[in-house]
Amino acid sequence: MKIKPTSLKEIAAIIQAKFIGNESHIITGFNEIHRVETGDVVFVDHPKYYDKALSSAATTIIINKEVDCPAGKALILHPEPFTAFNTLTRHFNPLSYSNANISPTAKIGNNVTIMPGCFIGNNVIIGDNTVLHPNVVIYDQCEIGSNVIIHANTTIGSHAFYFKKRSDAFEQLQTVGRVLIKDHVHIGSNCTIDKGVTSDTIIGKGSILDNQVHVGHDTTIGEMCLFAAQVGIAGACTIGNKVTMWGQVGISSGITIEDGAVILAQSGLGENVSAGQTYFGTPAGKAKEKMRELFATKQLPDLIKKLYDKND
Amino acid sequence: MKIKPTSLKEIAAIIQAKFIGNESHIITGFNEIHRVETGDVVFVDHPKYYDKALSSAATTIIINKEVDCPAGKALILHPEPFTAFNTLTRHFNPLSYSNANISPTAKIGNNVTIMPGCFIGNNVIIGDNTVLHPNVVIYDQCEIGSNVIIHANTTIGSHAFYFKKRSDAFEQLQTVGRVLIKDHVHIGSNCTIDKGVTSDTIIGKGSILDNQVHVGHDTTIGEMCLFAAQVGIAGACTIGNKVTMWGQVGISSGITIEDGAVILAQSGLGENVSAGQTYFGTPAGKAKEKMRELFATKQLPDLIKKLYDKND
Amino acid sequence: MKIKPTSLKEIAAIIQAKFIGNESHIITGFNEIHRVETGDVVFVDHPKYYDKALSSAATTIIINKEVDCPAGKALILHPEPFTAFNTLTRHFNPLSYSNANISPTAKIGNNVTIMPGCFIGNNVIIGDNTVLHPNVVIYDQCEIGSNVIIHANTTIGSHAFYFKKRSDAFEQLQTVGRVLIKDHVHIGSNCTIDKGVTSDTIIGKGSILDNQVHVGHDTTIGEMCLFAAQVGIAGACTIGNKVTMWGQVGISSGITIEDGAVILAQSGLGENVSAGQTYFGTPAGKAKEKMRELFATKQLPDLIKKLYDKND
Repeated sequence: MKIKPTSLKEIAAIIQAKFIGNESHIITGFNEIHRVETGDVVFVDHPKYYDKALSSAATTIIINKEVDCPAGKALILHPEPFTAFNTLTRHFNPLSYSNANISPTAKIGNNVTIMPGCFIGNNVIIGDNTVLHPNVVIYDQCEIGSNVIIHANTTIGSHAFYFKKRSDAFEQLQTVGRVLIKDHVHIGSNCTIDKGVTSDTIIGKGSILDNQVHVGHDTTIGEMCLFAAQVGIAGACTIGNKVTMWGQVGISSGITIEDGAVILAQSGLGENVSAGQTYFGTPAGKAKEKMRELFATKQLPDLIKKLYDKND
Repeated sequence: MKIKPTSLKEIAAIIQAKFIGNESHIITGFNEIHRVETGDVVFVDHPKYYDKALSSAATTIIINKEVDCPAGKALILHPEPFTAFNTLTRHFNPLSYSNANISPTAKIGNNVTIMPGCFIGNNVIIGDNTVLHPNVVIYDQCEIGSNVIIHANTTIGSHAFYFKKRSDAFEQLQTVGRVLIKDHVHIGSNCTIDKGVTSDTIIGKGSILDNQVHVGHDTTIGEMCLFAAQVGIAGACTIGNKVTMWGQVGISSGITIEDGAVILAQSGLGENVSAGQTYFGTPAGKAKEKMRELFATKQLPDLIKKLYDKND
Repeated sequence: MKIKPTSLKEIAAIIQAKFIGNESHIITGFNEIHRVETGDVVFVDHPKYYDKALSSAATTIIINKEVDCPAGKALILHPEPFTAFNTLTRHFNPLSYSNANISPTAKIGNNVTIMPGCFIGNNVIIGDNTVLHPNVVIYDQCEIGSNVIIHANTTIGSHAFYFKKRSDAFEQLQTVGRVLIKDHVHIGSNCTIDKGVTSDTIIGKGSILDNQVHVGHDTTIGEMCLFAAQVGIAGACTIGNKVTMWGQVGISSGITIEDGAVILAQSGLGENVSAGQTYFGTPAGKAKEKMRELFATKQLPDLIKKLYDKND
């Protein structure tokens, strides 16, 4: 999430926090740790992750301990960095609930078809020739390309499943990112694509999602991918071009899948996959090895019987 | 499902049935066998379950055979107890189809946000500060707490998947229960939560459901649970507090999961889980044992090769 | 998809193609290869499938090479048969986007309940006593029987997941088929049932689908089937009567399942199942064999330990 350049002093004042650094140090955005860029504020609240946050691309760090400030950076001191970060992002990106079916601030291209029952939120952008079938919901700020087709009852832009466990409640990291659907994408019916927490969830050009596919926050999907029905991809995954996933595949958060990989049906993937590989199983491994294991397992009952008979 | 106190004679007359017991014996509700309380009518149509029904908390039993009536209880004799029970529950809870987007009989709290395209059925109750994103559907009689967030295209209160197989058709047990969503619950987009058949489906305070989660009839979920996307929980489950389920987990009907248990991604659970345990696999077992099996299975192809080589 | 009888000459002119055969040869419809009948046009673009197309029931073949024309048939020559077929089917069945909630061309039976937020497309037919809960979407041309119940946020008639991979984009086979839902069917909330590509997707009389079930294009489901939540059935499957699938089952495309078969929860089925069989696992096999493998796998870690100890 980007903001207009704002001084450290002004930002710290919003949450009434002390800071370390030049008061005119400039802040141009907010991001969680996986997406930080120069100018960004990031937060960290556990000593285990202090170094990662301090040495990241972020130039301002909200932290719950007074530590040495890296050169050219600034620290904002706050006992609850997670909550402070939420306060700041919501300050610049307040929740809004449009009560119009199609927000007057949405920018709709030429020759766009929006069928009955659709909801188009504030500041949504939709490219030319795109078709939204009935009851599609597009949350605020999302961008849909040209020549996109989205089928009925699909939700684009629901909030990230990203919660911090407190002793008596979960605290949600406020969602201030977007979904970007590139040109020529097809999305089936009853799919759900969550916004990035602070950055963008992206579906690349020409990719095809069948029905009931779920894509989590901040996941980026390349061009010409093909995902069959009921695939579920967790948050913060990086998926290349021309990746194929068959029905009901599940991908854990933070996984990278390189170009041209194939994930076979119902696989549950918890490791990275390099280009062109085919994976299968739960937990998924290289399909060739998994098939060998399956073949061996089929022989196992007779093998055990034989071994015990021999020992009789 | 509760009714105002009604006499056995009146109830039996509705379905033109004979009864055994005091005609002024009082009936205060209807429940299926797993949820019965004193005052309830239950039904039983198979000798295998006669004892269970007769000795349950229910004080009136619709039964298809003349048996000894337990002391202080009453029997209603009917050749088709299932159908008779349906007739009675629908008599007191007739199907209604509101044609308003928001029923005039719904009670909506203060500062509630109901976005476009939502449907709020008859007698629905919604607590303060709750947000319903676009196209959320809340069936009649359901209760949503305060500070609840429900994302787009989610369905709360569809009917129980509870059918009796007849020779030429399925007969549905009529759904006359409710869904109760407690305070501070978050529900993702395109989720489905079914009503209890005669009792309540409950999502406990502060629990978080990601997108495309399914919860079956009469399932009760405790406080501060966390369920990732595409989890499916069948009917009549009892889930404790602070239970975590990762993506695409499936839970069979009637399962009990105690506090703090963790069910790993894509597991299919068919047995009860005690407090604090971690389960994995299909069918799921203790994760530690399953990981040991997975590790062994990886060695199996080479083991088989070696054993056969030795025998050559 | 049927059309009024049209001459070969007229059809070929629409796509400016050469043809082989009698110019007055009659064409009465279009179908992809799995559904062809006499009078149909089919297309073929790969030598591997030439014989199959030429010897199929189709009496007109769009093909990308000049081959011998079978007796009584006709060929249409086109460098891109897939694209030519799309052009022709869309010519006779142009995309239309109704902007009415309930199209004036829909034929609605007696005593039908259509709750708020539903979309009923052009030429949809709905039988007597059917209930559509809120926000159900029925695409153009679909037919819903009598005494059908469809729960909230379900999508009937989204387009087939059937794409041809070109070097720089996927080209979709245009969907010109229908969904036929027969009498007394129950469909849960947030289900998705795709149209047939050129033919029909059929849900047989009295079948019951729980929530979040997906049914792909051209799949035909018999009578009195019972599918639990989150089942996903790919395209072009043939499923008999009284088939049961428990939660989260996945069925690959083109599979045949005969009457009375049972597929246990979370199974992933990639082979045909004969009548009355019970299947389990991913990939699914006969449940009895799979249970034997599971039992053996449980013993495997100790077996390996023993074998290695012996060799020490």
